[in-house]
Amino acid sequence: MLAPSSLERLIELRGGLGAVPGVRLAGVHAGIKPRKRDLALIAFEGPRICAAVITTNEIKAAPLVVSAEHLAASETMRALVCNSGCANACTGERGERDARATARQTAALLQVAAGEVIVASTGVIGVPLPMDRVQRGVERAVAQLDEGTKAAFDAAEAIMTTDRVPKLAAYAFYHEERKYVVGGIAKGSGMIAPSMATMLAFLATDFPVSRAVLARLLADGSDESFNMISVDGDMSTNDAVYAFAPPACDPCDVPPVCEQAFRSVCLDLARAMVADGEGASKTLEVRVSQALDVGQARIVARAIVNSSLVKTALYGEDPNWGRIIAAAGAARAKIDPQRWSLDVNGKPWVGAGAVELLSEAEAHRELEPSTVFVELRLGLGNAEATAWGCDLSRDYVRINANYRT
Amino acid sequence: MLAPSSLERLIELRGGLGAVPGVRLAGVHAGIKPRKRDLALIAFEGPRICAAVITTNEIKAAPLVVSAEHLAASETMRALVCNSGCANACTGERGERDARATARQTAALLQVAAGEVIVASTGVIGVPLPMDRVQRGVERAVAQLDEGTKAAFDAAEAIMTTDRVPKLAAYAFYHEERKYVVGGIAKGSGMIAPSMATMLAFLATDFPVSRAVLARLLADGSDESFNMISVDGDMSTNDAVYAFAPPACDPCDVPPVCEQAFRSVCLDLARAMVADGEGASKTLEVRVSQALDVGQARIVARAIVNSSLVKTALYGEDPNWGRIIAAAGAARAKIDPQRWSLDVNGKPWVGAGAVELLSEAEAHRELEPSTVFVELRLGLGNAEATAWGCDLSRDYVRINANYRT
Repeated sequence: MLAPSSLERLIELRGGLGAVPGVRLAGVHAGIKPRKRDLALIAFEGPRICAAVITTNEIKAAPLVVSAEHLAASETMRALVCNSGCANACTGERGERDARATARQTAALLQVAAGEVIVASTGVIGVPLPMDRVQRGVERAVAQLDEGTKAAFDAAEAIMTTDRVPKLAAYAFYHEERKYVVGGIAKGSGMIAPSMATMLAFLATDFPVSRAVLARLLADGSDESFNMISVDGDMSTNDAVYAFAPPACDPCDVPPVCEQAFRSVCLDLARAMVADGEGASKTLEVRVSQALDVGQARIVARAIVNSSLVKTALYGEDPNWGRIIAAAGAARAKIDPQRWSLDVNGKPWVGAGAVELLSEAEAHRELEPSTVFVELRLGLGNAEATAWGCDLSRDYVRINANYRT
Repeated sequence: MLAPSSLERLIELRGGLGAVPGVRLAGVHAGIKPRKRDLALIAFEGPRICAAVITTNEIKAAPLVVSAEHLAASETMRALVCNSGCANACTGERGERDARATARQTAALLQVAAGEVIVASTGVIGVPLPMDRVQRGVERAVAQLDEGTKAAFDAAEAIMTTDRVPKLAAYAFYHEERKYVVGGIAKGSGMIAPSMATMLAFLATDFPVSRAVLARLLADGSDESFNMISVDGDMSTNDAVYAFAPPACDPCDVPPVCEQAFRSVCLDLARAMVADGEGASKTLEVRVSQALDVGQARIVARAIVNSSLVKTALYGEDPNWGRIIAAAGAARAKIDPQRWSLDVNGKPWVGAGAVELLSEAEAHRELEPSTVFVELRLGLGNAEATAWGCDLSRDYVRINANYRT
């Protein structure tokens, strides 16, 4: 009845995690932050396998340590609890005790094992969790657990710190005449060491997979998205991405459309983070092509969106292409000095031999819109990669100067 | 130096009203709502002419009455102050006194005349403004007035009620080699009579125009946007759109690109309202074409997006096209019963003579994405119009059932 082509199509849905069958959510005000929701709970209808991608920062927050233990000890998970307003990082043994207590309380109320609960935190570093408030918040969240869009928005709000907008993404696809959904919520915004913020993303699907396959889906999705964005180049103590799926009865390959759904959810959430970067007035999308391999293309693309000189030039709409090349060169990937070329918004900007093809005024105009696309061709091979960043504005400085006031 | 074509181009900016030169904003927590920002202030560098489009509801809230008096008495305005959490509607003489006092206090702190301040409110109806808190909020807002994206987001947040995301839009354009910006912020979400919410939008530009021209720009922009959206078909006591611009020295025509910028800002804000409709999981875009005139096309398009039967069918992804035709027919505009036809997402759905061209399953699939496009051709003329609505979900019912708890 359905044409094969339509079976391969991704269907964009609203509601993020709330669009995934078997997922209930809540986002409540526990009082960790003076106002606003600050505790999110995600509960699954049955056991879920879980894959994680976490910060490579040597300093890992207590909830990351506790969750890693749970992941090592249990095949499946049943819930995730996350607070904002306090990162529970650099809090020593007390921090781990608090994370464990949060998991235990959540598990007791949901009637599952404590080792089946993932814990996450985001917010100020070096301050212990106010456990009385966390406990009250967990009680409230369990009571409010619900399916659907509203519950997902509440949960997405509850993990926000300096984020301006909640971040949700969901895609449906068909496989063997059944409909499945991959959905997620995330929080982003920049981080200034040593006291700030975090990138968090929580994904789920109702498509059954093995743990190894889920790990691969999440790693592939993250490599092209969360690992290719930069607000300020800092890496948090709490960065984590968790994905949940029902366990597959027997190991089987996932269809390409399912991989695509994971990628699309990751990419949408990552782009939303960059667009909502602290103080951001513009998004910069950098494609690096004609690289020797994807690894080099990624390094160069990331170096460009990470460069404070590129970012401030973008804020000032200053067509200083030398900063882009300098950032690429500093990344130590191979570039052919005679053959590289640069486009802006699809227009040739600098041709081979560093010949300027747009006037200063024309190039300035190309930097005015809220989204700017740059393509740097390295002139060496066929590999390419894309990274996303944002400008560095005076608002970024102000937000981070006043974060704790 | 610049090509003529590029001079006609609209440039999308981030930051809404914060992108308009000469506009300072603030959004603070005054305590009218238990948490969250609830008082927004917009202040202009110099005198601004002001145009308004307000609710046709017979019951008009006090701030609308007071602002209309100010607009009648003064050629120019200097500021707009808006609170959320309390609509100051159906509050009798006290309501007008409170609105006047708010304008007077704002004016005194900004050192302008009270008659040069527009006041607006949104929130619960029938409850008087807590004036001690409003006064504290105004003081705080004046102290925090600032230019730029962050201030605009703060202000956009401060006018939210059940909105999930702040709504901002801005476009730049060039005229006679100078750059101008049209920007705006808005709040939307549904309203259930008699106690809820409001649509508000505040626009500004640095392009000087006469008052008559500004009124026309705003009316044209609103007709194609704010007047073509529906979350639940109700009309609030507080609905208002205000636009501000520097006065033109002599009456002159505005360039088409400026009109386009106004239209684009209105349209972006209106679409954002629909996408963020209370409990909305889908946006419905309805184009009615082949109508005898634009007026009829608009009536039919609006009738379709307003229909609760169409909206619930969309929520259930039920391809019940009879409801669409029934809603169009009920609007009493002319339709050729033998020649009308219906497309969904660009695919022929129902052909002339009511012949179904998609199977039930195919049509169901077309209703799955988060945005669904429907085109109804009336088979009579050449006029067309587009309206935007959203589905009617169980979350809508819950949000409005619990609004005051």
